[in-house]
Amino acid sequence: MSVYLHDIPLPEAKNRLRLALEEAGLWKVLGVVEIPLDEHAVGRVLAEPVWAKICSPHYHASAMDGFAVRAAETLGAAPSTPIQLSVSHSQLPAQAVYVDTGDPLPEGFDAVIPIENVEPLDESGEVSANLRRPAFIRIRAAVPPWSHVRPMGEDIVATQLVLPAGHTLRPVDLGAIAASGHQTVRVARRPRVAVLPTGTELVPIGTDLKPGDILEYNSLVLAAQVNEWGGEATRFPITPDDFDAICQRVEEAARDHDLVLLNAGSSAGSEDFSARVVEKLGTLLVHGVAVRPGHPVILGMIRRPGGGEIPIIGVPGYPVSAALTGEIFVEPLLALWLGRPAWQYPVETVFSTRKIVSPAGDDDYVRVVAGKVGEKLLAAPLSRGAGVITSLVRADGLVILPRGIQGVEAGEPVQVHLYRSRTDLERTIFCIGSHDLTLDLLAQFLALRERRLVSANVGSLGGLIALKRGEAHLAGSHLLDPETGEYNLAYIRKYLPGLPVRVYGFVGREQGLMVKRGNPKGIKGLEDLTRPDVRFVNRQRGAGTRVLLDYELSKAGISSDSIQGYDQEEYTHLGVAVAVASNRADCGLGIPAAAQSLGLDFVPLFQEKYQLVLPVQFAQDALLAPLFDLLGQAEFKRAVLSLPGYDVSEMGKLIVEV
Amino acid sequence: MSVYLHDIPLPEAKNRLRLALEEAGLWKVLGVVEIPLDEHAVGRVLAEPVWAKICSPHYHASAMDGFAVRAAETLGAAPSTPIQLSVSHSQLPAQAVYVDTGDPLPEGFDAVIPIENVEPLDESGEVSANLRRPAFIRIRAAVPPWSHVRPMGEDIVATQLVLPAGHTLRPVDLGAIAASGHQTVRVARRPRVAVLPTGTELVPIGTDLKPGDILEYNSLVLAAQVNEWGGEATRFPITPDDFDAICQRVEEAARDHDLVLLNAGSSAGSEDFSARVVEKLGTLLVHGVAVRPGHPVILGMIRRPGGGEIPIIGVPGYPVSAALTGEIFVEPLLALWLGRPAWQYPVETVFSTRKIVSPAGDDDYVRVVAGKVGEKLLAAPLSRGAGVITSLVRADGLVILPRGIQGVEAGEPVQVHLYRSRTDLERTIFCIGSHDLTLDLLAQFLALRERRLVSANVGSLGGLIALKRGEAHLAGSHLLDPETGEYNLAYIRKYLPGLPVRVYGFVGREQGLMVKRGNPKGIKGLEDLTRPDVRFVNRQRGAGTRVLLDYELSKAGISSDSIQGYDQEEYTHLGVAVAVASNRADCGLGIPAAAQSLGLDFVPLFQEKYQLVLPVQFAQDALLAPLFDLLGQAEFKRAVLSLPGYDVSEMGKLIVEV
Repeated sequence: MSVYLHDIPLPEAKNRLRLALEEAGLWKVLGVVEIPLDEHAVGRVLAEPVWAKICSPHYHASAMDGFAVRAAETLGAAPSTPIQLSVSHSQLPAQAVYVDTGDPLPEGFDAVIPIENVEPLDESGEVSANLRRPAFIRIRAAVPPWSHVRPMGEDIVATQLVLPAGHTLRPVDLGAIAASGHQTVRVARRPRVAVLPTGTELVPIGTDLKPGDILEYNSLVLAAQVNEWGGEATRFPITPDDFDAICQRVEEAARDHDLVLLNAGSSAGSEDFSARVVEKLGTLLVHGVAVRPGHPVILGMIRRPGGGEIPIIGVPGYPVSAALTGEIFVEPLLALWLGRPAWQYPVETVFSTRKIVSPAGDDDYVRVVAGKVGEKLLAAPLSRGAGVITSLVRADGLVILPRGIQGVEAGEPVQVHLYRSRTDLERTIFCIGSHDLTLDLLAQFLALRERRLVSANVGSLGGLIALKRGEAHLAGSHLLDPETGEYNLAYIRKYLPGLPVRVYGFVGREQGLMVKRGNPKGIKGLEDLTRPDVRFVNRQRGAGTRVLLDYELSKAGISSDSIQGYDQEEYTHLGVAVAVASNRADCGLGIPAAAQSLGLDFVPLFQEKYQLVLPVQFAQDALLAPLFDLLGQAEFKRAVLSLPGYDVSEMGKLIVEV
Repeated sequence: MSVYLHDIPLPEAKNRLRLALEEAGLWKVLGVVEIPLDEHAVGRVLAEPVWAKICSPHYHASAMDGFAVRAAETLGAAPSTPIQLSVSHSQLPAQAVYVDTGDPLPEGFDAVIPIENVEPLDESGEVSANLRRPAFIRIRAAVPPWSHVRPMGEDIVATQLVLPAGHTLRPVDLGAIAASGHQTVRVARRPRVAVLPTGTELVPIGTDLKPGDILEYNSLVLAAQVNEWGGEATRFPITPDDFDAICQRVEEAARDHDLVLLNAGSSAGSEDFSARVVEKLGTLLVHGVAVRPGHPVILGMIRRPGGGEIPIIGVPGYPVSAALTGEIFVEPLLALWLGRPAWQYPVETVFSTRKIVSPAGDDDYVRVVAGKVGEKLLAAPLSRGAGVITSLVRADGLVILPRGIQGVEAGEPVQVHLYRSRTDLERTIFCIGSHDLTLDLLAQFLALRERRLVSANVGSLGGLIALKRGEAHLAGSHLLDPETGEYNLAYIRKYLPGLPVRVYGFVGREQGLMVKRGNPKGIKGLEDLTRPDVRFVNRQRGAGTRVLLDYELSKAGISSDSIQGYDQEEYTHLGVAVAVASNRADCGLGIPAAAQSLGLDFVPLFQEKYQLVLPVQFAQDALLAPLFDLLGQAEFKRAVLSLPGYDVSEMGKLIVEV
């Protein structure tokens, strides 16, 4: 058992792979195929430059419907000195010939006069009804040579470069290639990539799950990535942790693929076969790369049955590690094999909303959400867990903290590699503050109105502080003032002095204790929290729910010290619900919708107001207009009321302007 | 015959279509299909939000290989006060259980200690070789509850919003959807779009062309666009200009498509059937939209055999108009039917390098190339011709000049809708100046080195002026100083005072007269240009070739007035070659490679030096480094020498620094 990996820096790992590929003759475009020039050629990469075979237009073409003339014969024509040119006169040779747009210019003619600029005349010089074959046309302006003509080669000259090798074909490119006389294109062969999931604990999508089963979807993500980057992925079935079975699968895959992705089994755990498999079937180049998440990456070369070698990448099992291994190792390799530049995400300088701690020894890939608040581009770090695939789904980009950097402070500038365009960031509403389940609904409704709602759950107080720092457009808040029984106002006065804000009603909601179904411990109120057999789960400091709890405990004269689990903190209502549902706790304070989500019972205790706080500057911004629209819409209110315990009577109402 | 179109403003045109679609019940997602959650789901658009069916992880999972423990039993463990926990002691109940990464936490346990942090002991307290089932483990640090555990729901909580409706699926999304318990996804049905090319003059790709034939490739571009935007295109064969035949085709297409694109025949010319076809089969909503290029757009609704109506778009015949009609009308319609936001290109403010004149009555779509020179984003307008598809191929973006704007001056800021990322613009080398065929080769070689060479042909002097204005990284120049016989230096001193520049050798080349094959007019030198039977074609003012001509004419005592065609100007060597090949002229001054391209004969007259002029600032910039690499490479020199009349002896040599 090889317990410890030896992590090497990323450039060194890439270099070892490069040398091995060069030696195997694989550091180049894999092959060239000639495909028909049809709409399916989009996305393929040119293996050779396209040089024009013909000119376009391939003849001098009329650019208008009108009359072809000899420019020299129009000289002198003016409003007061019109000139007549013969068209179909019975005795005179033609000085003008009718042409449609696109018609070739007849031999000897060198200009076109648009039909609307001529007067058709009959043989007697009267106006003619025959627009296209009058006897004469009368013109009142001379035309220079080649006017209203698209000369041969105007668009493309035979032999010129139409598109360079390495170019990925777009729809308009197909038109230009066709116009330059081609019927086919020579493009890079698509690399064939085998994706092999391994692991006895893995089960396919759709299996009835039992504890310990792990849904196998990394192969899905990897295969989709490969296809998107121009490769051709084959997903293999799950192979259990059996050394010989894995070896056999890998050899089978090596037969007709250019690259094998061997997923999972690459941690240092007891099921670590990948490295041994690579060693047996070829050469292990790298076992462990200093990137996070993702470090147990394996790189190697394996013998191909029938001769030669192909690369194999041992992809770590955690989903975020797996997807990032795709981006870091697979995409550049496919780019090389296709002859196109490796994908580079646009990089922007943004300000981190939070401190980021990073291991000094690794390149650290931090997923962030990003947006623009006022004039400032901001990034808020997401969960760092390698198992949290939603952190990649939610990510607007990656902040890469290189080896040697131990992190950045809140407010420091960082470079973010953006998955999204600036335009997307500019239609992003940053909502930082308290968590409520209706924010998901709001996000859903806003998505259909060209707005992206990005919400970070840092508690009500955290939201107000984010507003103060100019790091959010709005904050959801339900901070009860023990003195007045009012919501939010006292806190706004205290924490946001000098910042003009508006407070809008959003939802009224119940708070109460979430308990296991059937309430087996008979919990009825806060007084039960001090019982030795009751384990509580709390919300984090600064959360409105925590403020409410402390207020009610103090009113009831209950000391927090007497509550088991008071220090165990969750950041969302659903987090509390999960803790109860999964038996980490017996109860927690929260909202009925969260209890219902997880099939818990709910003991209602209090009514509270959840409000939206917005700086006046943003309340009047076009960015937020769709949000205010929604607050007045019956459809949205109905959706909120479909969740239990909500009241929408104050939704959208301006409560106070400070 | 309906000769004149009535162009209406774009918003009004779109509004008429919208009202008609609303009336027909088509202003919505067309339909929903449930598809398997596999790698082919990428690019589809969610028709409904994805709500999580299960939690992920769906149980408390160990995050490490190690021992599951009860945190409370580790209290007090410290380096000097280790604690022993029983694992497989023959008499004691287990206080620790070995778990692999991903294993469920056994019932009653609430933390994991990584294997590397424990000492395995046997029953007598000695170090054990059995790493996973020792009798005891000894630990020297307490662990908090839930450490090294991925609690149930850490990633996804059942019932939470995973992805909103209207979201276009990416690879990582498939993983999150799988993790949240789905095996299928409900996505918008792909709209079916029929693309019907019409026109008697049209011939399919691959036809042997005769004058007047027009290659039909608009259907290719339109179909590729439709597929790229999420629709499903069907290309129909070419229908000749026959009213009944077109009606029949359209009716056939309407049967099983959601949209018909009727291409060409939409100008006001004699083959204008489209509007009449729409009138016959349904309702003509719009005939002519005030956008340029593209104004003869037709919008209508036609009856669907079997009931209902579908929209039809008459797409103009010019390729640029056709492709832009796709972007302006088809893409937003597909977006609507798919339920996703319409595509928005990122917008940047850039400075126009040239004056742009625009018709005040139209929204004007100006294709531009864009790049960054120093700190300044620049856009250079491309050909305005609606027939010049290469202007779309070369375009990095569009400047949209709205109705009412008559154009912009050189140096004015404009908003550009970018087809490319900022990153692409930042790896763009702007080469403005004289034209030489080897620039195509240079572009091709640079494309493989992650650089984009964008060259604009404005003549040698124009190039120097662009350098002065900070609008180019380098200029190709071959300006002969009549006083000294030297190249460029005198002009640099005169036009670039105070700008430190370097001049590098590039190519030596022959200049001479391009004449028709076999030289039927027996042209031997400049003296023949004054012959009455010889028509000349010139280069534009400021071109090095023009300077050379004027210098040699003056030396020979020939007056330019005596040359027929001296005023007829082309902007490139190939332009001159085409003029000769197509009988617009009998000869022109240029380089042998251009003559060879078009199968012309060449009368060599002069030797000249074509050099590269770079401000010192850019000569030292990393952006330009691959270019200097190339100038030293045998492979590139060989490619240049494969063209006739070139000498590379001074390539890459620093001629002078000023």
